[in-house]
Amino acid sequence: MSPKKVSESLTVMTEIVLPNDTNNLKNLFGGQLLSWMDRCAAISAHRHCGRIVVTASVNNVSFQLPIPEGSIVTLEARVSRTFTSSLEVFVDVFLEKNAKGARRKANEAIYTFVAVDQLGNPIQVPPVVPESEIEKSRFDGALRRRQLALILAGKMSPNDATELRALFFPNEKQN
Amino acid sequence: MSPKKVSESLTVMTEIVLPNDTNNLKNLFGGQLLSWMDRCAAISAHRHCGRIVVTASVNNVSFQLPIPEGSIVTLEARVSRTFTSSLEVFVDVFLEKNAKGARRKANEAIYTFVAVDQLGNPIQVPPVVPESEIEKSRFDGALRRRQLALILAGKMSPNDATELRALFFPNEKQN
Amino acid sequence: MSPKKVSESLTVMTEIVLPNDTNNLKNLFGGQLLSWMDRCAAISAHRHCGRIVVTASVNNVSFQLPIPEGSIVTLEARVSRTFTSSLEVFVDVFLEKNAKGARRKANEAIYTFVAVDQLGNPIQVPPVVPESEIEKSRFDGALRRRQLALILAGKMSPNDATELRALFFPNEKQN
Amino acid sequence: MSPKKVSESLTVMTEIVLPNDTNNLKNLFGGQLLSWMDRCAAISAHRHCGRIVVTASVNNVSFQLPIPEGSIVTLEARVSRTFTSSLEVFVDVFLEKNAKGARRKANEAIYTFVAVDQLGNPIQVPPVVPESEIEKSRFDGALRRRQLALILAGKMSPNDATELRALFFPNEKQN
Amino acid sequence: MSPKKVSESLTVMTEIVLPNDTNNLKNLFGGQLLSWMDRCAAISAHRHCGRIVVTASVNNVSFQLPIPEGSIVTLEARVSRTFTSSLEVFVDVFLEKNAKGARRKANEAIYTFVAVDQLGNPIQVPPVVPESEIEKSRFDGALRRRQLALILAGKMSPNDATELRALFFPNEKQN
Amino acid sequence: MSPKKVSESLTVMTEIVLPNDTNNLKNLFGGQLLSWMDRCAAISAHRHCGRIVVTASVNNVSFQLPIPEGSIVTLEARVSRTFTSSLEVFVDVFLEKNAKGARRKANEAIYTFVAVDQLGNPIQVPPVVPESEIEKSRFDGALRRRQLALILAGKMSPNDATELRALFFPNEKQN
Repeated sequence: MSPKKVSESLTVMTEIVLPNDTNNLKNLFGGQLLSWMDRCAAISAHRHCGRIVVTASVNNVSFQLPIPEGSIVTLEARVSRTFTSSLEVFVDVFLEKNAKGARRKANEAIYTFVAVDQLGNPIQVPPVVPESEIEKSRFDGALRRRQLALILAGKMSPNDATELRALFFPNEKQN
Repeated sequence: MSPKKVSESLTVMTEIVLPNDTNNLKNLFGGQLLSWMDRCAAISAHRHCGRIVVTASVNNVSFQLPIPEGSIVTLEARVSRTFTSSLEVFVDVFLEKNAKGARRKANEAIYTFVAVDQLGNPIQVPPVVPESEIEKSRFDGALRRRQLALILAGKMSPNDATELRALFFPNEKQN
Repeated sequence: MSPKKVSESLTVMTEIVLPNDTNNLKNLFGGQLLSWMDRCAAISAHRHCGRIVVTASVNNVSFQLPIPEGSIVTLEARVSRTFTSSLEVFVDVFLEKNAKGARRKANEAIYTFVAVDQLGNPIQVPPVVPESEIEKSRFDGALRRRQLALILAGKMSPNDATELRALFFPNEKQN
Repeated sequence: MSPKKVSESLTVMTEIVLPNDTNNLKNLFGGQLLSWMDRCAAISAHRHCGRIVVTASVNNVSFQLPIPEGSIVTLEARVSRTFTSSLEVFVDVFLEKNAKGARRKANEAIYTFVAVDQLGNPIQVPPVVPESEIEKSRFDGALRRRQLALILAGKMSPNDATELRALFFPNEKQN
Repeated sequence: MSPKKVSESLTVMTEIVLPNDTNNLKNLFGGQLLSWMDRCAAISAHRHCGRIVVTASVNNVSFQLPIPEGSIVTLEARVSRTFTSSLEVFVDVFLEKNAKGARRKANEAIYTFVAVDQLGNPIQVPPVVPESEIEKSRFDGALRRRQLALILAGKMSPNDATELRALFFPNEKQN
Repeated sequence: MSPKKVSESLTVMTEIVLPNDTNNLKNLFGGQLLSWMDRCAAISAHRHCGRIVVTASVNNVSFQLPIPEGSIVTLEARVSRTFTSSLEVFVDVFLEKNAKGARRKANEAIYTFVAVDQLGNPIQVPPVVPESEIEKSRFDGALRRRQLALILAGKMSPNDATELRALFFPNEKQN
């Protein structure tokens, strides 16, 4: 399968935070943002491979800025790397200030999808080619994140997770 | 603050998977489940501490079983451990078969919340007392998960993450 | 068909009252609560018989406490009695005070469902066995409520409604 | 307060049954219809008295016809009678056949509302004047329904419920 | 096909403006009103012809009055004229004052629908017979609006648009 | 006020057509698309002027392609021209084929907004500078559309609508 650029999977969503999306502090519910990020990421994964995709996992997500009612929120999703039938997607969330201010990064999340056929069986996807610095950095990190997930799921021995060891224990790498 | 039992924060939600909640395979969207789990976990955290709580992070979530349209889904959330002003909550998701079959575990997720006052400032929460085997196991694991999150955020040195080292590299522990 | 306990059909739903659920006094719309109670009761009836169930009627429902925006509402539904293919279900609604207070009973409603096959034809359901005092009291009352409904629908003569006469005209019973 | 005609409170709502409104038989959920009827009845009560109204109770509702997905449903609500600060409202539900057929009555329900001021305290409402045969019949029946509700709530002795005795036990009336 | 009266297609919808329907000024979003008007107009067109109808175009819509949160909005749609397989529908929007005030016209819009068969192919519809003054005026105007639309779409020469010339350039008509 | 480029107001929204968004042919409701276009256009107008904007009018919208359930729809809105306190916004709608096909233009609409202050009074907005060919063409057309709207509203004499006369009656222009 011929590889695709990261930028070909760029998916942009713009949402307004409505009253039903907010908690008692009148800020956006975390769960509503998780749902928007999943939808944006799924479309991005679909654009990369042209297949039905199903959410496989959500990596560690940290909520950094409270997002008040009435805010305009922009989500940008891009495929960062693929493995056989799975696709890792980064979602960057930006908050637009109501009064002309510059937009600020409010959140970042990593979702993993599996491409499936009409019966739900996994199916191979094209590789992705990173171009910019941040695309390359996310591409490299994907392998470490995958090793971490496999170890946590008991499907890989820590000794084989060479990339991950380098991340956590830089001194040991030289041994 | 006087501690509370895990069982005091038990929160149960029952949902039916409606057509708008499903993808092209007629299975539940991952993002919709993430949103339900967040809401259930937030109520559980609120029951433990009686304060407004905001989602701080979502730990690694794996989607195990596809959940078809029309399914009855039951979510059970419980506070597993607290740290100063943060609360870790486990959500167990069960799928009820449409025809009398026994319910099956479909998913498990871990959310972290921060308790805040009316101005959004962090505020201390009571400790939690695990009783059953699984409650104790989740209580112990919470420390390792917290160390992992701190390392990933660059806020802790790997050398200080004694609990985490034991998880990933059991042989090193003895050194 | 082997009978089932009332407790086997217990169904719990937890909801937060969002802005769109409220009237101009910022209290929960009665209609929204009716809809939640119906859904909770339908799942309870389904759990008892494992069949598709359709709402047949709603008995007298009184709204006792106003439920303000932001409240956490818990619904508990249980099958109280069955008649051939119909199931009577009680729904108890509790209001959780936002600040640590004990929960209060806010409402109580009785729904009747009919179990149907895939073509919509009525189908027999298992009997239910009441155990606690309140379960027995609701089980006994179900017969009177059924007689009242049949008379109101013109399908039973008042003279045959022996249980109902006892309720309304206790002195006549002895005759 | 000057009385108003029943027809002045007529409120018409037209709805389409969408996929999310239906059960596994692809028919309208009872709970969704209960919610629409409440909203339509509340606007009718509001039109009669010009006040905020809150749902006080729902009388016996029977679901007669299944209403399939895609149906056009018309609701008509009218105030049938008032008592001090409460208003009884009838809702008639009609089902429009998709292919040119005449509309059929699908359901009928009776809701009771209480008019309140901005603080939620009950406030007096104008009387209603029935004109047509059916309006008069519903006006008369309202008193019997009110007596039944008071007896069921333990707020009236059966001996005082003269209207109700006539309904249930016509022969006793002559005594 | 036998013609129908305008009044036979009258469709009434009543809506309450909920918090999620409003912008930062707490007035109804224009887009939400556009959506309600389309639904009301589509049911009216369907009632006229008994066929599936799809929105073909929306003519110039002006929003005249802001509609605040909590308002009761009434929409009335009527078929004004038909052309082969297309139907022009007028929607009048009324705003009901919260405190007993008389209702005011808040908006007016014109939608055009095409009647189609199950495969989506256009299908002929019955003519409409205007009766009142306003019905006749709207019937006559429909031809000019159609000519304007055809010219804007490049499907008619301005010289052939005799009705439209009369509207814009009354003096030229006499030539 | 310093002018802004058209591209600075570009707003992108991506939506999936869910079951509740579709008619009996399983295609997107026109009204749902009108609502999405209004929201996207309003954010674009807001980005241009940094003010609250309210929908003033919708120009002729033609629905060209049916959009089936499950489709991914992309909306792109840009401010095309401003007049004192009003902003004309073009929305282009694209349909993404489910299986890797190239995206196709499905619709185009023109909305007009008015920028207002916190009290709802009109407020001046910056001019816009068109750069590309299509931006210039839309900028020029905006004046003709404005004259057409003013004539239709009876606020301009046809003799003063020089731009519009040129559009409809090219031969007369030379006189």
